[in-house]
Amino acid sequence: MRKGILHSYERFFPLTERTPRLSLCEGDTPLVPLRNMGRELGVELYGKYDGLNPTGSFKDRGMVLAVSKALEEGAKALICASTGNTSASAAAYGAAAGIPCFVLLPAGKVAVGKLAQALIYGARVIAVRGNFDRALEMAREASREKGSLAIVNSVNPYRLFGQRSASWEICDELGDAPDWLVLPVGNAGNISAYCAGFEFYREIGRIEKLPRLMGVQAEGAAPLVKGSPVDEPETVATAIRIGHPVSADKARRAVEITSGQFLSVSDDEILDAQKMLASSDGIFAEPASCAPLAGLVKLRKNGRLPGGLRIVLVLTGNGLKDPDSAVSRVDLPVEIDGTPEALAEVLGL
Amino acid sequence: MRKGILHSYERFFPLTERTPRLSLCEGDTPLVPLRNMGRELGVELYGKYDGLNPTGSFKDRGMVLAVSKALEEGAKALICASTGNTSASAAAYGAAAGIPCFVLLPAGKVAVGKLAQALIYGARVIAVRGNFDRALEMAREASREKGSLAIVNSVNPYRLFGQRSASWEICDELGDAPDWLVLPVGNAGNISAYCAGFEFYREIGRIEKLPRLMGVQAEGAAPLVKGSPVDEPETVATAIRIGHPVSADKARRAVEITSGQFLSVSDDEILDAQKMLASSDGIFAEPASCAPLAGLVKLRKNGRLPGGLRIVLVLTGNGLKDPDSAVSRVDLPVEIDGTPEALAEVLGL
Repeated sequence: MRKGILHSYERFFPLTERTPRLSLCEGDTPLVPLRNMGRELGVELYGKYDGLNPTGSFKDRGMVLAVSKALEEGAKALICASTGNTSASAAAYGAAAGIPCFVLLPAGKVAVGKLAQALIYGARVIAVRGNFDRALEMAREASREKGSLAIVNSVNPYRLFGQRSASWEICDELGDAPDWLVLPVGNAGNISAYCAGFEFYREIGRIEKLPRLMGVQAEGAAPLVKGSPVDEPETVATAIRIGHPVSADKARRAVEITSGQFLSVSDDEILDAQKMLASSDGIFAEPASCAPLAGLVKLRKNGRLPGGLRIVLVLTGNGLKDPDSAVSRVDLPVEIDGTPEALAEVLGL
Repeated sequence: MRKGILHSYERFFPLTERTPRLSLCEGDTPLVPLRNMGRELGVELYGKYDGLNPTGSFKDRGMVLAVSKALEEGAKALICASTGNTSASAAAYGAAAGIPCFVLLPAGKVAVGKLAQALIYGARVIAVRGNFDRALEMAREASREKGSLAIVNSVNPYRLFGQRSASWEICDELGDAPDWLVLPVGNAGNISAYCAGFEFYREIGRIEKLPRLMGVQAEGAAPLVKGSPVDEPETVATAIRIGHPVSADKARRAVEITSGQFLSVSDDEILDAQKMLASSDGIFAEPASCAPLAGLVKLRKNGRLPGGLRIVLVLTGNGLKDPDSAVSRVDLPVEIDGTPEALAEVLGL
């Protein structure tokens, strides 16, 4: 029974008696054994399928805490600059909280399809003439000026705090930390949140060792692999198409203290991994979520994946958010006459 | 921790030692309190959000049992006729089981978008020159002929058996059956499965009374409301666009023995309810899933919804499966200059 993360991990979060316990029953997502891919790679493999959160991505974990704290502090409205998963999540929790949610984004880049979720949850979307940074700056300014307007971009510290819950769930289910945790890295907040979550669990004695954190970026948006920002990031994995990661320093520390690694994979490798994950183990995740599997496949190919490890891949978003990119990889339907003979030939059984 | 329904309800299912326990961690979906809509309607309202199953619909509950039993009985491949949620689910469990899945559908009506999920999970899609009934008949014939080819359409009795698990989860979480269970009715299998599940729980003493089963159809596809089949069903809620329900008799019995009711709602009422559910309580469900809420709104309007009832709406599928229909109801973005003044005006705070 899922009651939401503010219920499951109440005492690990900075809640007071006056914090409303919002919930869309986020969290407690399945840790799916990926038996077929695991056998292929020679490891014990799991997917933490955070695409089964209420709005289809891991962002709900941070948003539920950020919006609950905003309510406690008297917020009457939410604001964020986002074109993707963040806006969907902010809009849904705004709806549940009964307050308006304003979503800012650069004019001219507004694809209604991409924004469908936020719009359906009732967000008021504002297209700003200017670039994304301008939109974000305006959101920050407005929230600084109006105490009743809470910004819920990842500059809001409760966002990353809430995201720690995923690391706790993994440890609670496995009884310890895995050997490796492999996850997509864009703005680099989530890898930092996982690290903080694992460190906390070690502190309170729930786990003994930290897992190695392996951060996977797309080749066209790999500032942490290259060691310098990327001005025009490009990748099919839009959720990690970020050239100047806000949490770069924290992410570098996370990789360092866990003896982890950053690596990058091509868009082709990402789409191949997406197809493999779906057709080998029956899990459909959005492209960014498949970068970790692409990374493992690459390490394995280069002889750098030790056998027998227990590895968790973080599947951050639901494949249904972006089916078009995946369709480029599928076999198209064949057409036959409506006779048993025609069918038998295609079945080949 | 979700291990899948064959694990959670092992002893309630017809499993033997030789039945493989397949799992994509289906089931154990959240029973989300719909506080805002509940207050509006004067009832205690919950949504059983089965759109958070692994392939995004309740079909996974029946499919995991059907495919597990097929494996036990020696199946080497799966076959079904379907253009929607069934094909997605069959393809995913086929992938997890490591056997091919063939999906038959009428040629000329193959929209790759609709089939994206099945294709991504690696199903082999076969377009048959003929209508849907011909495709289904061919699938049945082929499986009768080849013992190693298991048909997983709802003629497979394990499908409805697996779907009973949703009723058990609701009772386990509430500690009893709700007063009313309201659900969309297309082929009428799910209402029959819920009824059988509740009856079983009453038999073994887990609940005292059966809930009233309220089956909601779309006006353009309402054979059970009208009392006669509909030859050309039409509705925006494609998952219940069915004029000749396979399980009509079972469904009528379910409504009768629970003192329930069939009712119908218009496409407009369905889309309004979809918007309400998302913008009032932060849950985005596919159109068919919103027919139940539309039904409650209609009963309330007609003064036929008693106050204070505990009511569960069955939200059968994820809104991300079909975002386009929902977008017709949203407010479009407004465009502004990149200045604080322009923003302040739109915010109106």
